[in-house]
Amino acid sequence: MSRADDTLDQAGDARPGVDHPAFALHVGGKMEVASTVPLTGADDLSLAYTPGVALVCEAIAADPALADEYTWIPNTVAVVTDGTAVLGLGDIGPVAAMPVMEGKAVLFKQFGGVDAIPICLDTKDVDEIVETVVRMAPSFGGVNLEDISAPRCFEIERRLQERLDIPIFHDDQHGTAVVVLAALINAVRLTGRRMEDTKVVVSGAGAAGVAVTRILLQAGVRHVAVCDSKGVIHSGREDLTAVKQDVAAVTAFAGATGQLGDALEGADAFVGVSGGSVPAEAIARMAPDAMIFALANPTPEVHPDVARQHATVVATGRSDFPNQINNVLAFPGIFRGTIDVRASRITEGMKVAAALALADLVGDDLEAAYVIPSPFDDRVAPAVAAAVSAAARADGVARR
Amino acid sequence: MSRADDTLDQAGDARPGVDHPAFALHVGGKMEVASTVPLTGADDLSLAYTPGVALVCEAIAADPALADEYTWIPNTVAVVTDGTAVLGLGDIGPVAAMPVMEGKAVLFKQFGGVDAIPICLDTKDVDEIVETVVRMAPSFGGVNLEDISAPRCFEIERRLQERLDIPIFHDDQHGTAVVVLAALINAVRLTGRRMEDTKVVVSGAGAAGVAVTRILLQAGVRHVAVCDSKGVIHSGREDLTAVKQDVAAVTAFAGATGQLGDALEGADAFVGVSGGSVPAEAIARMAPDAMIFALANPTPEVHPDVARQHATVVATGRSDFPNQINNVLAFPGIFRGTIDVRASRITEGMKVAAALALADLVGDDLEAAYVIPSPFDDRVAPAVAAAVSAAARADGVARR
Repeated sequence: MSRADDTLDQAGDARPGVDHPAFALHVGGKMEVASTVPLTGADDLSLAYTPGVALVCEAIAADPALADEYTWIPNTVAVVTDGTAVLGLGDIGPVAAMPVMEGKAVLFKQFGGVDAIPICLDTKDVDEIVETVVRMAPSFGGVNLEDISAPRCFEIERRLQERLDIPIFHDDQHGTAVVVLAALINAVRLTGRRMEDTKVVVSGAGAAGVAVTRILLQAGVRHVAVCDSKGVIHSGREDLTAVKQDVAAVTAFAGATGQLGDALEGADAFVGVSGGSVPAEAIARMAPDAMIFALANPTPEVHPDVARQHATVVATGRSDFPNQINNVLAFPGIFRGTIDVRASRITEGMKVAAALALADLVGDDLEAAYVIPSPFDDRVAPAVAAAVSAAARADGVARR
Repeated sequence: MSRADDTLDQAGDARPGVDHPAFALHVGGKMEVASTVPLTGADDLSLAYTPGVALVCEAIAADPALADEYTWIPNTVAVVTDGTAVLGLGDIGPVAAMPVMEGKAVLFKQFGGVDAIPICLDTKDVDEIVETVVRMAPSFGGVNLEDISAPRCFEIERRLQERLDIPIFHDDQHGTAVVVLAALINAVRLTGRRMEDTKVVVSGAGAAGVAVTRILLQAGVRHVAVCDSKGVIHSGREDLTAVKQDVAAVTAFAGATGQLGDALEGADAFVGVSGGSVPAEAIARMAPDAMIFALANPTPEVHPDVARQHATVVATGRSDFPNQINNVLAFPGIFRGTIDVRASRITEGMKVAAALALADLVGDDLEAAYVIPSPFDDRVAPAVAAAVSAAARADGVARR
């Protein structure tokens, strides 16, 4: 059994125990602040701090655009959570969410060269979260919302985008959506399909499920059915939130209703972002050469070994199986590309461009076990960043 | 002319010009985030991020005290400003304040090993500032308030101390007060005085002036007169804010009234934290062997060369004259010592202990040009930290 397997199995047990190597790694946290300037004597101090710093402050006060050049603001992203939807753990609160936010921050730096600061908020109130982020915003070049439960996450993101002229990005939605789209583009190509003919069933109507659905439609998929715990979301249901009503209005193929298993009848692709489990019999009802993305972590909706009996392409969120759908393929490069051109927002076009760039990296090496690059492929973040910068310019949101 | 002189003179001109070396130093800002854990492959990722991180989150959710061990929270301090009283520049706003906050953060790390995060707020409203900091508080082990104008700074600090169980420290008040007290202790010793007999005139009744006054009284000084722009603050005046009424109630020697020059008649010590200027004639009225701390930056209230004609001990805020009174002597060690024992607050006793530790470092080398250690004396932060930790234990606020 590999070390990764071991980790996963223990994580699957969900039994806190400080004997696991993850605890030793986390002692003292996973990140720190560092100076990028020398501070070895009085001369250094007189430039980095008083009195020299006063000149820089005055210049920025006279021309605020100079903050872009002379502060760390443009390269700094707040990773904001209220701890209500952390991984698959649910509402564990802001303090217990910190290890995930630190992890996010170190991945931002490692893969994107972005300085990310975890901000874990002691409120679940939408108004308060929005106001708090707006007030902190002068300190940051962007905001990455993280692990905030649906449907609050949608409203928080929308309102922040209205209030602020820096990029606001809810990674659980858009990071996941970008990587799923990239993998689906290649899986569709491999199995000889066309996007517009492909029938996709999305299991889960939270942040990820809704965003995956939206980006698939944006990218040309026409036939999507979305399921929540009560079955297919369709306009005949009377228990739908506003967000799910929107989903119903734009999805469901051929009047699909019923349960997940019914929707899977003849479907080409399954995208699981629900955390539930799907029986093998349901998967067996899919079309030949099916594509199964079982992304729940650490336990996929259907085990990859079972999925492979019924599908040509199988992807998971796990590092110990082929085709890992991991947000780290997206968010570092997306923010890098956004910051590089000082884009005021992250448009739909920029997200689709990121997905296309990811898909292109696979190129002629495309095969069933390789529809998406590895998170440790050095080409990933630069390729995504370049595509996102170009799309920002094309969409007119680049500021340099 | 030394480089420091050059810097100071140009800073004194206060003429923004990107030809000054301070601008080259500030390109891209002065700080960054760094990972403290390896991230070179899938195994690392599975511990620092999913799935391993979930175990740590769950453990903290079950026992929040574990955040102290497994996150960077306890060692992380928010440096919070609204940009209303930045250096001597006044209300230049949150973005233009960032270079000072970054400078503070790199000094926190360099001298105290503390990870400090600049948070520049887009609001001047006391209620909003308090609420914002309270909501962010789960992310931090302490809060350093910075460059917030008086009298709002007093209320903000008090209310945050009431609401939160992490240390709240307004450096412009208490950092300055600690270093002034340390220097005065040694200056009093050098000139053969006793604290209780020493007459001190404080010029300036903002954040620093009020805090200096309070710590001097705490440390045994009995005779203090505080002056604002209208003269001596005394209970006969009808134009006093609530804070100044408090000052009037506990200060003024022998019914001092009138202007600053009147208060200086026969005074032993002058502490200037006003940013104004004091004529040589006024200084000449002080007692023999006077002590003059002219701390306005970059232009002292009275030039040190002039002050030396009338005083035995002269201190300034500048690095190019002897006896530099610089907050960097205090805040890194104070927070280091506070964090080391996880103190819930920074008590008056901890501040006085910091001042005594600073004064002690001078020891037998005490002379008129050396009443306070250099900011680059390696002994400073450890000595202050140890004294502060011990005082926290003595005051019953240490949590380990």
